[in-house]
Amino acid sequence: MARLITVTDPADPRLADYVRLRDVNLRKSLEAEHGLFMAEGEKVIRRAVATGYPVRSVLTARRWVEPLSDVFGDAPVYVADDDVVEAVTGFAVHRGALASMERLPLPSVAGVLAGDLPGQGTGGRGEVPRRILVLEDLVDHGNVGAIFRCAAALGIDAVILSPRCADPLYRRSVKVSMGAVFAIPYARMGDWRDGLAEVRAAGFTLLALTPDQSAVPLHKVPRGERAALLLGTEGDGLSSRWLREADHPVCIPMSAGAMELGVDSLNVVAATAIACHELMRD
Amino acid sequence: MARLITVTDPADPRLADYVRLRDVNLRKSLEAEHGLFMAEGEKVIRRAVATGYPVRSVLTARRWVEPLSDVFGDAPVYVADDDVVEAVTGFAVHRGALASMERLPLPSVAGVLAGDLPGQGTGGRGEVPRRILVLEDLVDHGNVGAIFRCAAALGIDAVILSPRCADPLYRRSVKVSMGAVFAIPYARMGDWRDGLAEVRAAGFTLLALTPDQSAVPLHKVPRGERAALLLGTEGDGLSSRWLREADHPVCIPMSAGAMELGVDSLNVVAATAIACHELMRD
Repeated sequence: MARLITVTDPADPRLADYVRLRDVNLRKSLEAEHGLFMAEGEKVIRRAVATGYPVRSVLTARRWVEPLSDVFGDAPVYVADDDVVEAVTGFAVHRGALASMERLPLPSVAGVLAGDLPGQGTGGRGEVPRRILVLEDLVDHGNVGAIFRCAAALGIDAVILSPRCADPLYRRSVKVSMGAVFAIPYARMGDWRDGLAEVRAAGFTLLALTPDQSAVPLHKVPRGERAALLLGTEGDGLSSRWLREADHPVCIPMSAGAMELGVDSLNVVAATAIACHELMRD
Repeated sequence: MARLITVTDPADPRLADYVRLRDVNLRKSLEAEHGLFMAEGEKVIRRAVATGYPVRSVLTARRWVEPLSDVFGDAPVYVADDDVVEAVTGFAVHRGALASMERLPLPSVAGVLAGDLPGQGTGGRGEVPRRILVLEDLVDHGNVGAIFRCAAALGIDAVILSPRCADPLYRRSVKVSMGAVFAIPYARMGDWRDGLAEVRAAGFTLLALTPDQSAVPLHKVPRGERAALLLGTEGDGLSSRWLREADHPVCIPMSAGAMELGVDSLNVVAATAIACHELMRD
């Protein structure tokens, strides 16, 4: 039986996990401090639970309790009217339910690269990864989510994040990913400077995606047994250090006519989609 | 010499083109009624002007007048403090200048398919198009803009829109496209029912992109001399009518593992990027 608790006061301290969901800075520190993240909507909550993340609590309107009742476990379910939910979170929650989920310790980079993920919350198919993405300092949570969605759908085995890359479990990342952040193992480098060396040492060919059209087109580059595609930040692309460290700079060929017209680049999600598709072709 | 006019009253009727830029419904009717669209920021304004769209007027803070002074022509330039601009438009304009541009008559579908675009504002390279996109009822302006950006960067020759497809010249489309909506010719069908027949009659093979994995993978399908890729609306994909009318349903192969995990689709922009890339490969 779900533990239903009716709440009527937006200032109720038991709702502290849910406050001001649109305030990115507040949420970053609050979620880090309490080791939680938000899952929004039935589909995403179910995926998070199925992946092994424990439910801390749920906040929802009465009409959404029934469809989700099998996933709550022992967690308290705070039932509130829409206006109370909106007053707490700062916006109208359309997807029915919000769940505050407990983060699990991330696997190490070495663990992810070895396919060795005992008891981790992240997905994964129990195989040694051959095709991975390495994200350097992506700042936009929506882009991180969209990249995980592409990666998962196209069969990329794992993702490695630079120390400053945006959080895949941030609410917007989770939402844009449609839950794909739970479906693909990932780890975060402890150190930007030496991070790539560890990936190379594991036998990965490092392919640095760049808009520079003098680089080798991705479909022409030898990938080897294991290949890591490096993706840079939205505005500036990869750092010069990572570009230098890579085995090959690679590009997606642009139309010559488009270059003349000044439409000379793809956004990072479109570029990633094409690059993942190419990477998985062989 | 630019015609600089200082304005201090947000209710000044000369600023009527710029009111409430975030109110989609208001803007749709206002822009249609007055035959205008908004270009935002120096880069986009320059592209719109270079493509041949006349400037109706400009609204900007004093510091942005100088860098753009060569593009104003005879148009009035309303100079206002940031708070006045914000009061008129409803948000803080970060990209410096807003230009109200005059729409030009769209070319006909027949004209675009024949590469016959005399004096049109839309771009194009004066060639007969061989690879085109046909968008059915996309509702999100950001997606339409992102699709134009992909299409232009990857060398797609033209775009045809269904009657109800979102407007490529809406402010958000223009912005997300980075001006690519000016770089690629497009036309809008007068009629949804018979629209595809006209494209086929022009000799195009009709390829309907679908997430259905029983369709032919796009890279395996014969495209012929001229090929049109049909893209459906964000939620439901292509209508059954258009799917039936197409020569081939085509898909982007998804990872079997991902399908099991329920991460079984790409968003429309990622799918379009991959599909355009494949379409231009041959």
